[in-house]
Amino acid sequence: MRMYDLIYTKKLGGALSPEQIAFWVKGAADGSIPDEQSASLLMAICWRGMSTEETLALTLAMRDSGKRLDLSSVPGLKVDKHSTGGVGDKTTLILGPIVAACGVPCPMFSGRGLGHTGGTVDKFAAIPGLKVELSEAEFVRSLAETRFANSAQTADIAPADKKLYALRDVTATVESIPLITASIMSKKLAGGADALVLDVKCGPTAFMKTLEDARALAQSMVDVGTAHGMQIRALITRMDAPLGWAIGNALEVMESVEILRGEHGDSELAQMSFRLAAEMLIMGGAAKTLTEAQAKVQACIQDGSALETLRRFVTLNGGDARALDDFTRLPQAGQVVEIRAEQAGTLAAIDGRALGILAMDLGAGRRDRNDILDLGVGIRVHATVGSKIEKNDLLFTVYAKRETLVASSPYLKTIEVINVPAPEVPWLLDAIGCRP
Amino acid sequence: MRMYDLIYTKKLGGALSPEQIAFWVKGAADGSIPDEQSASLLMAICWRGMSTEETLALTLAMRDSGKRLDLSSVPGLKVDKHSTGGVGDKTTLILGPIVAACGVPCPMFSGRGLGHTGGTVDKFAAIPGLKVELSEAEFVRSLAETRFANSAQTADIAPADKKLYALRDVTATVESIPLITASIMSKKLAGGADALVLDVKCGPTAFMKTLEDARALAQSMVDVGTAHGMQIRALITRMDAPLGWAIGNALEVMESVEILRGEHGDSELAQMSFRLAAEMLIMGGAAKTLTEAQAKVQACIQDGSALETLRRFVTLNGGDARALDDFTRLPQAGQVVEIRAEQAGTLAAIDGRALGILAMDLGAGRRDRNDILDLGVGIRVHATVGSKIEKNDLLFTVYAKRETLVASSPYLKTIEVINVPAPEVPWLLDAIGCRP
Repeated sequence: MRMYDLIYTKKLGGALSPEQIAFWVKGAADGSIPDEQSASLLMAICWRGMSTEETLALTLAMRDSGKRLDLSSVPGLKVDKHSTGGVGDKTTLILGPIVAACGVPCPMFSGRGLGHTGGTVDKFAAIPGLKVELSEAEFVRSLAETRFANSAQTADIAPADKKLYALRDVTATVESIPLITASIMSKKLAGGADALVLDVKCGPTAFMKTLEDARALAQSMVDVGTAHGMQIRALITRMDAPLGWAIGNALEVMESVEILRGEHGDSELAQMSFRLAAEMLIMGGAAKTLTEAQAKVQACIQDGSALETLRRFVTLNGGDARALDDFTRLPQAGQVVEIRAEQAGTLAAIDGRALGILAMDLGAGRRDRNDILDLGVGIRVHATVGSKIEKNDLLFTVYAKRETLVASSPYLKTIEVINVPAPEVPWLLDAIGCRP
Repeated sequence: MRMYDLIYTKKLGGALSPEQIAFWVKGAADGSIPDEQSASLLMAICWRGMSTEETLALTLAMRDSGKRLDLSSVPGLKVDKHSTGGVGDKTTLILGPIVAACGVPCPMFSGRGLGHTGGTVDKFAAIPGLKVELSEAEFVRSLAETRFANSAQTADIAPADKKLYALRDVTATVESIPLITASIMSKKLAGGADALVLDVKCGPTAFMKTLEDARALAQSMVDVGTAHGMQIRALITRMDAPLGWAIGNALEVMESVEILRGEHGDSELAQMSFRLAAEMLIMGGAAKTLTEAQAKVQACIQDGSALETLRRFVTLNGGDARALDDFTRLPQAGQVVEIRAEQAGTLAAIDGRALGILAMDLGAGRRDRNDILDLGVGIRVHATVGSKIEKNDLLFTVYAKRETLVASSPYLKTIEVINVPAPEVPWLLDAIGCRP
């Protein structure tokens, strides 16, 4: 088999066989196929796409490039969640403890942040002492004892995906529905969960710019999961403004805890987290209907069991759970700057991507893979889209390193103020895949 | 400037600026841009194409990556020819001496063969002693003294093209009109000729499969040449059967000499060589009309001055010109095998590509860049398309190494025999670009 023939076939729009795809993935991972040939094939895939059969084969080959987790020692249907990523998205910190508190085991592997969106691993790392890289034994123990486990992806899960993702990252081939599908689903299938709820973001600053593209990606992942015997359902959610008031790791822990305490219950972040949790409860067999599932979610917030699950998870994995009740124990920023409105009007839009880049520049995120984060810095967003603002109203509080000089202009550029009421747009755009 | 942004722009179908293209070509040549990024951009160019402005900028950046030849010491308009390559195409060996004998200086750089088509350099190398890699001084001297010069491309001409071509060769990105245009035209512009006649091959086994594609490539090259002040005209010629009776290096020298002696004057090879030569004479100002040019071509064949020019070129550059008159002085094969027809009928087609591959396997061509050639081996094609054959008629003579076992079946598979007369198809399909 020659790699050249695979590239040539795909360039002309033909389909690759499962054997050809396995040959490529193995060769890309072990270095026997040079990066320039993989890069050329990746761009040809962006161009010509892949059939469902090809995407299935790619997912399988990447899954089988490494280890598969065995979670069978933990009883019950294990349910995972994946989001394609958004600024301020801390839903994992909220829904993980909720789902676990409702009796459904929730094993989750998360990523580190890169670029303008943060990573769940970095958010958890803001809790002092919490171990965010668990061994398989630690992961299974956490799941068995608290029904919640979250860890950075270990190097032995889908190593071929790591290799190919690094290559896609520098060759502008990240945005491709079959490649995104195989990357996500190979890791999820290797991670050992029985069911998966997907949050596919849609908007001008998301991977998927249009509802049509978002639906196609959701359908592609649902098809691959279903074909491999995984229960899977995808919500398509709007992404433009940051999700919630917090951007930055310690700040996002604070906001998550506030929601688990029952605060901000009407916020988009809370509503989205609760809905995703409810879908997970149905997948895990803890509820039959959405109404029943949502009642369970509310109950575990009201009785404090969701927050208590998070405390137990933190304590079990070496973290200081007192920081969840006393935020002064979380990393703090040295400098606090308030950004105020220069004009009155209605807040029509907040540019989440631009704020994410500003937060990254403060040190909350990584421009480069090897950047060291400052877990205390970030942005508190006070205004919400659609609200009326007066001149001098507080819009953002910026938490920065002591030596950082913060100017208001870049923050003010991230908002759009109009003089007419803004139309309300729902956050839930569509759902793909059946409930059990 | 970031290479990522160039790839991303082209992936989305946007245009690259001349500065961006120059940045890429320089980085690809000096190694500061990794091959995987160039490979990804090359495939994106195959996908999205390039505008005339982009193709011009790419050609210029590649030309300027190396040295430009100065032929101004040789008087007269210098005219070059380029062919996109075909099996048995030895037109350079024929038309170079003709054009020079008619008074027009003909400076030509040629390639070595790779794959099923041979290279002009290898054909010249079959003449004992002839130096096929000339220094700039030797090249200019040959042009000044015989009005003909032919040499392998030196390493300092368009080195960026060499680097990118090697990358295209392994990443299935050779077939792209802007990339082919820039590769050919950057070398031709650096080579110092004032005018250029192109032979763009068209057919199922050529780069350009359809007349539409061939016209697009021809127009693209004419546009780039014209924009750089070069006189340029392209003929589009049919490619399917081998051109002439000879495939293999020494055999092709013999056939070329036979045509310069006035033999096979009605053959397609002779007609095509004479027509290309006539176009070159018009470009070089030696004739006003095609009729006048063709008469000059015939005259220099009849009076022996074309063949004499070839003898002088060979002698000047260290070769043994006696081999042109006594073919036993050319490299010989150890084994001769005759392949005869198994059935009677009309010869409807000869698969030139398949015969080219068979000749390569005999040792006449390179499967791999580092293969050593056997200059005496090859194939003599006795039958011509459209002719009637009887059972046991001689179809091919195979010239092989003594130890090679030659079976008739692969040779018989390269022909198609039918029972009705074959339609005659002209070899000249179109012409693009103006005469002066």
